[in-house]
Amino acid sequence: MDARLELISRTSVPNDKKILLIVIDGLGGLAHPAYGNQTELQYARLPNLDGWVKQRTTATGWIYPVRRGVVPGSGAGHLGLFGYDPLYYKVGRGALEAADLETSEIGRGDVTGRMNFCTVDAEGKIVDRRAGRIKDAVRQADALNQQVRIPGVDFQVIPMKEHRGVLVLKNGGWSPQITDTDPQKAGLAPLASRAVTAGDAAAEKTAAVVNEFTRQAMQVLKAMAPANGVLMRSFSTYPDLPQFDTVYSVKSAAISAYPLYRGIAQVVGMNVIREAADSDFKGEVALLARHKGAYDFFFLHYKDPDSRGEDGDFLGKVAALERFDAAFADILEMQFDVLAVTGDHATPSVMSGHSHHPVPVAIAAPLMPEDNTTSFDEPSCRFGVLGQMEGGDLMPQLLAYSGKLGKFEGFA
Amino acid sequence: MDARLELISRTSVPNDKKILLIVIDGLGGLAHPAYGNQTELQYARLPNLDGWVKQRTTATGWIYPVRRGVVPGSGAGHLGLFGYDPLYYKVGRGALEAADLETSEIGRGDVTGRMNFCTVDAEGKIVDRRAGRIKDAVRQADALNQQVRIPGVDFQVIPMKEHRGVLVLKNGGWSPQITDTDPQKAGLAPLASRAVTAGDAAAEKTAAVVNEFTRQAMQVLKAMAPANGVLMRSFSTYPDLPQFDTVYSVKSAAISAYPLYRGIAQVVGMNVIREAADSDFKGEVALLARHKGAYDFFFLHYKDPDSRGEDGDFLGKVAALERFDAAFADILEMQFDVLAVTGDHATPSVMSGHSHHPVPVAIAAPLMPEDNTTSFDEPSCRFGVLGQMEGGDLMPQLLAYSGKLGKFEGFA
Repeated sequence: MDARLELISRTSVPNDKKILLIVIDGLGGLAHPAYGNQTELQYARLPNLDGWVKQRTTATGWIYPVRRGVVPGSGAGHLGLFGYDPLYYKVGRGALEAADLETSEIGRGDVTGRMNFCTVDAEGKIVDRRAGRIKDAVRQADALNQQVRIPGVDFQVIPMKEHRGVLVLKNGGWSPQITDTDPQKAGLAPLASRAVTAGDAAAEKTAAVVNEFTRQAMQVLKAMAPANGVLMRSFSTYPDLPQFDTVYSVKSAAISAYPLYRGIAQVVGMNVIREAADSDFKGEVALLARHKGAYDFFFLHYKDPDSRGEDGDFLGKVAALERFDAAFADILEMQFDVLAVTGDHATPSVMSGHSHHPVPVAIAAPLMPEDNTTSFDEPSCRFGVLGQMEGGDLMPQLLAYSGKLGKFEGFA
Repeated sequence: MDARLELISRTSVPNDKKILLIVIDGLGGLAHPAYGNQTELQYARLPNLDGWVKQRTTATGWIYPVRRGVVPGSGAGHLGLFGYDPLYYKVGRGALEAADLETSEIGRGDVTGRMNFCTVDAEGKIVDRRAGRIKDAVRQADALNQQVRIPGVDFQVIPMKEHRGVLVLKNGGWSPQITDTDPQKAGLAPLASRAVTAGDAAAEKTAAVVNEFTRQAMQVLKAMAPANGVLMRSFSTYPDLPQFDTVYSVKSAAISAYPLYRGIAQVVGMNVIREAADSDFKGEVALLARHKGAYDFFFLHYKDPDSRGEDGDFLGKVAALERFDAAFADILEMQFDVLAVTGDHATPSVMSGHSHHPVPVAIAAPLMPEDNTTSFDEPSCRFGVLGQMEGGDLMPQLLAYSGKLGKFEGFA
């Protein structure tokens, strides 16, 4: 275990204080020349957030979810905020992508590969890497699960939206250190997978299984055009991380309308409120209220600012932040003992994408040092007492401010 | 070796500049509603400290001795300030507790167990875990050292104050990974110690020796009630840390009237001024003056603010700080080349205990960047040029400001 997580694990103690961590996806922004050189947070009217940071017990700062300069993907940014240092745990891209499957059919230690159902011609060459973006490939996945047979190999194909799916190799002994079969362009046949390192026996065995799977799959799918082939990439091991509730001595609940964030919460072992799948942010807030009694740590995810930032839509991101602010009034009424608002990365609309820039953070808790921030925006939070911190600094402080961390006297 | 310590070790060079690091135990505080929402440092009249931080060459900041959010015990906080990252060296709780023995009878690599002399009944069940808090158990310790015989085992029982002692297993080959014999409540017999991990041969051998020691001890002590039994806990290895003077190229002197801090200084290899044992803070300052010529790095410890903070005694902590301020005038007259004042952790009297909150730090040295701090207190130091740092950032800066660090060109 990462030494800091081990320290926290040894000193964390349960109590009845309730912590709410709100992650506003893509929260951080940058000054936009077309809008008075203000950031989205500065331009937006956020009376509830601003009133909240003005309170004596609310303090602000800047957070770098992974490290300064790193541009976090959604998975890495959240892992950082949750205290699972992405530089220590080295969770694979495939594993983070697969997190949105949130299926109980993938277990810790299983190896997964992302799958595209594709269209191939009579010679087996790729015509369309996405099989015309068919609605789903449930029929194809069923056929593969029933008809592909590889002695001694327990596998499962899980269909996802459109042309996407996942191959799961179960029961251990597999290695994700193998190359993709997806050549990333049409006109070629699927590639043979190989061990990344020659002589790596587990990887060579895994690559052989993947190649045999591809060979049989092409037979089974022959008559099922446009999805009559498979391409695989991003092999990874479903990560075996220290479990959130055990490390932090909390009973956690993750609330997100978007599957990826429920998946990442599941990867770290949070309890995922499944009803959120059929929800929007208003629904998320209603779920928060409904479940408040049953848990003492809540992760609440708000997606819209990131989406509008990715679109380069400054006013759209502003409007998304203002919608959050309206809902924030209801959240404040719930009176959590410790309340934190931050983001998993910046998505400045002037950049139309994720960026490495720092993200504002605010924490409200009793016994907070004096802080004079009067507005929840990037330039204001720079002067807050929380200072400039990294993702891994967040959870220990949320626990400490809620009285859930005892004195550290040394390791056993 | 921790990579940062290795870097410092490779670049440190001796010179004749003199550094003084003053650790005010439990220095950091919080605003107290009963005292004008001021912290202890704000409320106290500290003309010497305030005048000192106003000087052009004095700069301030905040320090997190271990990490943000972590509540440091005294041992961990000091290790952090001394540059021995507690997350890297993972010194055991037992070793830090045993540090206050400051006995030369424990060597690096020896395994120690804390011992309670206890009262047991005719059936060997515990009646009083602390043997009526007898004044000492010197007689009992002597009897055990003379009469317990275990072939091939070199051990020593060291009596401490009241019912406390330590068992030292010498000459290596022992493991601290064994369970306590102290059941932590009366009415039970002492527990048999076991290896934490079954099959760990060194631990199983150590547990067997501890159990045989307990068996013989009960015989030897039979007629010595109320201290007629022994309980052991917190087994640990006396840590084998890189030695302070070697790493930092200094000749160090540790001055503390309290044994725990002399012990921690000894653990990192500082030279401990033993006369301080019979002293108070005034005496410590006199020892500092007397020994100034013979060393070039001084660790001076001031205990009182922590004790008053632990008591929840705001005015008591204020008075303790004001007593420090009076003595500080004498310290300033000694004209150290580099002078630092900080704490090992916060002990806000409003919390009556150690806390995770940041601790003010001030460093005076030539060639210090401009700093406009006018008062040595938490809110003022927040804006100092030293910024917010961790414990491990302190020693390299003290060395650098004294010219004791050469250029780092890479590892050899």
